[in-house]
Order: sequence, then C-alpha cells, then structure tokens
Amino acid sequence: MNILVINTGSSSLKYQLIDMTNESVLAKGVCDRIGLEHSFLKHSKTGGETVVIEKDLYNHRLAIQEVISALTDEKIGVIKSMSEISAVGHRIVHGGENFKESAIIDENVMKAINDCVELAPLHNPSNIVGIEACKQILPDVPMVAVFDTAFHQTMPRHAYIYALPYEIYDKYKLRKYGFHGTSHKYVAHRAAQMLGKPIESLKLITCHLGNGASICAVKGGKSVDTSMGFTPLQGLCMGTRSGNVDPAVITYLMEKEKMDINDINNFLNKKSGVLGVSGVSSDFRDVQDAAEKGDDRAKLSLDIFCYGVKKYIGKYIAVLNGVDAVVFTAGIGENNAYIRKEVLKDMDFFGIKVDWDKNEVKGIETDISAPDAKVKTLVIPTNEELEIARETLKLIK
Amino acid sequence: MNILVINTGSSSLKYQLIDMTNESVLAKGVCDRIGLEHSFLKHSKTGGETVVIEKDLYNHRLAIQEVISALTDEKIGVIKSMSEISAVGHRIVHGGENFKESAIIDENVMKAINDCVELAPLHNPSNIVGIEACKQILPDVPMVAVFDTAFHQTMPRHAYIYALPYEIYDKYKLRKYGFHGTSHKYVAHRAAQMLGKPIESLKLITCHLGNGASICAVKGGKSVDTSMGFTPLQGLCMGTRSGNVDPAVITYLMEKEKMDINDINNFLNKKSGVLGVSGVSSDFRDVQDAAEKGDDRAKLSLDIFCYGVKKYIGKYIAVLNGVDAVVFTAGIGENNAYIRKEVLKDMDFFGIKVDWDKNEVKGIETDISAPDAKVKTLVIPTNEELEIARETLKLIK
Repeated sequence: MNILVINTGSSSLKYQLIDMTNESVLAKGVCDRIGLEHSFLKHSKTGGETVVIEKDLYNHRLAIQEVISALTDEKIGVIKSMSEISAVGHRIVHGGENFKESAIIDENVMKAINDCVELAPLHNPSNIVGIEACKQILPDVPMVAVFDTAFHQTMPRHAYIYALPYEIYDKYKLRKYGFHGTSHKYVAHRAAQMLGKPIESLKLITCHLGNGASICAVKGGKSVDTSMGFTPLQGLCMGTRSGNVDPAVITYLMEKEKMDINDINNFLNKKSGVLGVSGVSSDFRDVQDAAEKGDDRAKLSLDIFCYGVKKYIGKYIAVLNGVDAVVFTAGIGENNAYIRKEVLKDMDFFGIKVDWDKNEVKGIETDISAPDAKVKTLVIPTNEELEIARETLKLIK
Repeated sequence: MNILVINTGSSSLKYQLIDMTNESVLAKGVCDRIGLEHSFLKHSKTGGETVVIEKDLYNHRLAIQEVISALTDEKIGVIKSMSEISAVGHRIVHGGENFKESAIIDENVMKAINDCVELAPLHNPSNIVGIEACKQILPDVPMVAVFDTAFHQTMPRHAYIYALPYEIYDKYKLRKYGFHGTSHKYVAHRAAQMLGKPIESLKLITCHLGNGASICAVKGGKSVDTSMGFTPLQGLCMGTRSGNVDPAVITYLMEKEKMDINDINNFLNKKSGVLGVSGVSSDFRDVQDAAEKGDDRAKLSLDIFCYGVKKYIGKYIAVLNGVDAVVFTAGIGENNAYIRKEVLKDMDFFGIKVDWDKNEVKGIETDISAPDAKVKTLVIPTNEELEIARETLKLIK
C-alpha cells in the first residue's frame, strides 16, 4: 500500500512515495522551475543516490508525468507501474472554514478548495493545479486533500475572532485560521507517544520554528489557539516576517515612506523579521555567526525571536492553565540548540527545566528535560509528508 | 505645600489641587468644551458640592484663569491666593526616548517635549498648550512634566524593538513606548506596600483596564514590558480599539473596503474592540447587560477582552519567570468583578486563586486572593493625579 504525497508550489512540486505497511519512504524528490527555463527533477530512492534530471517541465502535468517516470524507472525507480500507487495525498494550504478535516477529493471538495482561493491567493491556486495535473496522469487513483488550516478549526470563537466590527467576519470570513496544522498535529501525537500517555489527557505547546514559525496550544489533541492568523504574517517574528506589530505602524510607514499596499506587504513579509533587524540574513546560522563575531544587531534579532517564543509559551500556558510538554520542531526547533536554550532558560517557575547537555541534540526525537522538570521539553523532528500519508490512508480505507 | 495637577486635552483641562502634607485632594474639576460653544467649568471642593460655571473659555489660558479663580474663590475655593500653589505637575502623554523620568520644565525640556509631537500628534500639542497657559497665569511657580511613557523606558531593547528593518527605528524612533506609565507605577508601589515587601524584591503584573487598557510587567519596580506599543492601539482589545491583529488585515481591509489611511485608523481606533464585536456599546456595563439578556455577540466581545487579558498575564509571567502579585486597576479593573472573574478563573497552575466573594469589591484597595493562593491578586484604584503630584514634589524639593 503506497501513498504518493504531493506538495505543489507555483513553480515547484515536492513528492514522497511512502510505503504505509511500515511508513517507510521509498523515494522522494522535487520538480523545480516548472514553467521556467532550466527546469529539472531531483529524485532520490531511499538508500540510493540523488539524481538530477534536466528536463523541460512546461507545466505541472509534465512534472507529475516525470515523477511517475522516475518512480517506475528500472534503475532509479521503486515501483513497477503506476498501479502500485494506491492513493495521492495533497497538501493544501487553506481550507478556510470549509474543512475541519482532510477530505477525499471530489467535485464538491474541488469547489470548496476553489472558494478558499480568496483567502490564500498565493498558495491555493498552485495546489489546485497540482491536483488537476495528478487527475490527468492518475485518473483512477483516489486523492485526498490535507489542509494546513484544518487542525486549527477546533479553536474556540474567542480565540479566532478579531476585535474588529463583526460584520467584517461575516463578509470576508476574516478571522484567525492558523497554519502549519499538519506539523503541529504530527508532533503533538508523537509527543503523546513519547510521554506514553493518551493525547486526550495532555496539554501541549508545539513550537514549529522554521523560516516560517508558529506556536500552537493543543488540549486533548485539539488545537485551541495558534500564533499565526488570517495569514502567516501574524505571531512570531520570523526569518523575513515581522510578526505582530502595533497595527498603527502599518499606516504610519505607508504615510512616511510613501509605500502602497504592495510595498508594505512586501516590506513586512520579505524584509522584516530576523533579516530586517540584523541586516545580515534570514538564515539563523548566518545570523548566529555574525552575533558570535560581535554584531550587535544580529544578536538583537535573535533576542527578539527567542523572546517572542518565550512569551507565546507563557501565553499558551495561561490558555491551557498548565502544560505537560513543550515541543520543538521544524528547521530551527529541531536543530538549533542555541535558540532553544535562549527560549527555555529562566522558565523554572512553570516547571520547565532543561538538561543543557541533552539540549545539544540535532534532529533526533529526544526528551531534553532535566530529571526534576515538572514539564517535559521534547525535540521532535516534524514529518508533514507522513502525516499527510496517514490522513490519506485513513480516508481511503 | 499644595500642588496643582493639570491634565490638558484638546478641548478640556482636568485639575486637582493636592495638599502634599497629607496627600489629600483639596479640590478638583474640569474645564470642558474649551474653544467651543457652551464651555464650562465643573468644580468640586472636597466635602462640598459640585458647581458648574458656564463661561466662555476661548482658550486654555482662560481656562487656567478660571481654575485659579475657582480655587481662590471665597465660597467654592480652598486657598486664599495663587501664592499657595507651590508647583504645578503636568501630565504629558509622550516623552519619547528623551524622558526616562519626570522633569522640571525649562526651555530645554519644552524643546524636547516639542520634539515628541511627531510621536503623539493628537496629545502632545494640547499638553504643550496647557503648559504655556500655566506659564502665563503662574509665571513664578515651578512646573514639572510627568510622562505617560517614562515608566516604560526601562524596557530592554528586545522588548521594545519591532522586528522591522532596523533603519526604521533609527529614522523615526519607531519602537514600542507603552502608555499609562503613571498609573502602572502608582499601583505597583501601592501593591508593594500592601504586600509589606520592598518593591525591589517583587515581580508584579499590573492590569490597567479602562476604556484604554494596558498591562505591564514590573520587575523590582521597573517596567520590563507592556502591551501598548508605538501608539495606544497595540495590545489588548479595548472599548473601541482592536488591539493586536494580523498586520496583513490592515492592507486587506484597505483594499477590500477601499479605505484610505485615515479611514482604517479610524476603523481600528474608534469602531473596533468591544464596540465593534458586540455592536452594542464601548461601555462594558451596557455590553454586560446585553450579554446577560442573551446577546451572543455581546458575550463574545467580553470573552475576547477577558481572553486577551488572561493571555497577557501568562505572557508576562514568562517574561518575569514568576509573579508575586497581579494587580487590577482603572475603571474596569477596579470595579468590574465579572471581568476579573473571567480573567482569573482557571489560573491555578500559576498559583493564582481568588476568593470570589472578596472579588465582588468595587473601587477599594483589596487583596482578593484565596487563602491558599501562591500568587496574590490585588484590586488597587489608580491615582495618576497623586502620582503626578508626588513626582512634582520630589523634583522641586
């Protein structure tokens, strides 16, 4: 029982083929520069070498075709024919209020995903193109849509309604949605397994810290609040995103710097965050290097990031009235011991205590708590593809 | 030793005359509709009746003149002549980074207050007019400027720098300032007295919940973070202000609703918050009445407000790595038992436990903690005028 997981961007298509009998990855890769010059497929068979195939990929249909060719290739492939693909799981960014769970893709679901384009104009159209391409190449294979927003649809109303005139919510469905739901869900369930307790009994705070970063309060396995909002700009300071600022700052800057709506959105999404404060990079490793060499603004940008994470942990402990474990995942959360230390130091009032030697771990599931910690701290590499495959399997069964 | 405290708005001037030998208010009042038709002075001598004097007050100088007349009047007055006023304390909204403390007003200080007009274009000009008017009427009386922002100037850099390109801070001094500083400082010191401990040893969270609302983390008597930002729009949802929203919401609404900068600022400052969500009122009593009668949106607006306060308390416990007492002050914080209860319930993980009978108090200094609470919860009516008078006395001594 193999499931193909697809994550489509505007000019890219990532894939993994997962054998669900043992949840092992058979092969994975990416088609990049789709529709552009010098497009290519990068493919790896598990245990084999990575192959780069330069090929004109004028559209996503050709890309999918190429993926299937690679997967069924005698040398670099892992299956004999398309018929060994039992289902396709698609990552879809925005499911709006339409999708509280994953869904088998049919006409109605396609319509509902289309209805969410307005909410994610940069992402949902690519996702739809990916589904359409798969339908053409694999017409008889069942497909499932797994939404980044679905996990957060359990938030209570007072957590997701903004303090704006209520009509705005009715009119535009303008509310907090939250993102990274697949990742938060995956690590929350892994945390329960690591703790050896039923997830229904647990209060968890999951910190997905990558180039995009969000934090989630998880009660009994359900998201009750999360830091991203109507868009992924809200919440934490990130690599290039500002996160929360005084709303009055937006119009102040538009006026003073003569920015229009596109300018300010670009400014807040692409030029702010750790990059903007440090002036060095959006890559935390570069910024840390600079900070270590005495760059004051680089140090400040990391301080702001860590302070933001620390504050959200406190905030969500208040929301949950307690916490059993704090979980770190994604690029920075899994690998960056410095950032974790800056976030987690001086948190003993909450019962959070870390074994600083254990904290030096990179990308391996580890309980890094000190022996006397009342609250556990866990490092758990995320696996959104596996979570998508699981959701897909669950639905097609 | 009498100190006159002045708080000037664009068309109003509030005053109190305080006898600093025992910190008692001798008289207080307000000039309203200055520069408009039907202007008047409302004056109360402590223990006496409130008198309303209709009078043409074309400008703030005439208003101050009228205040002095009332204070020295044979019947409604409390002093024989102006010479019994030892000093004047002025409330100034914005001191920018120029003022970390109160200051005796001289030419340099006036220049520095003027430099902050850019940061508080709606408030500082009125404050300056108030000072100039006082100078004309009381030319030989020393005057002190007490800033709403000064108390928060002890925030560390990672708390006040936004995750925007750093040049923006250099260019515009665009950063978090915080407001209500005089109130946060006053209640923090009163809390230390109530707890019988030196303020230097305490971690406090002060919740100033009025029509404008802000929360402050106070460590050893110094503000280390606060919820308002560059302007008083940031932070909590308030009577008519949105508080924090996804920054992307601003441009989304400008585009969809064809709002310009003035429109959106007005929308976020005057039409949002509890008023916007409830559609009922910005007055919490009206909204509570509606909620009790079953109005769903009224209930939701209160839930959002209380949830916001609860989250900030958790956030600042993380910032302080603990808390000795949480303090409630200002109109809602002092008087509204319902709001306090909604905020404070289910906070026992932090050691916050309230005696719900004691919580029914209105406007009286009270320790409302349960006997077994590890963290104290205090209701402390604020007294910004007295704090301004104290600052004034300290400086002229």
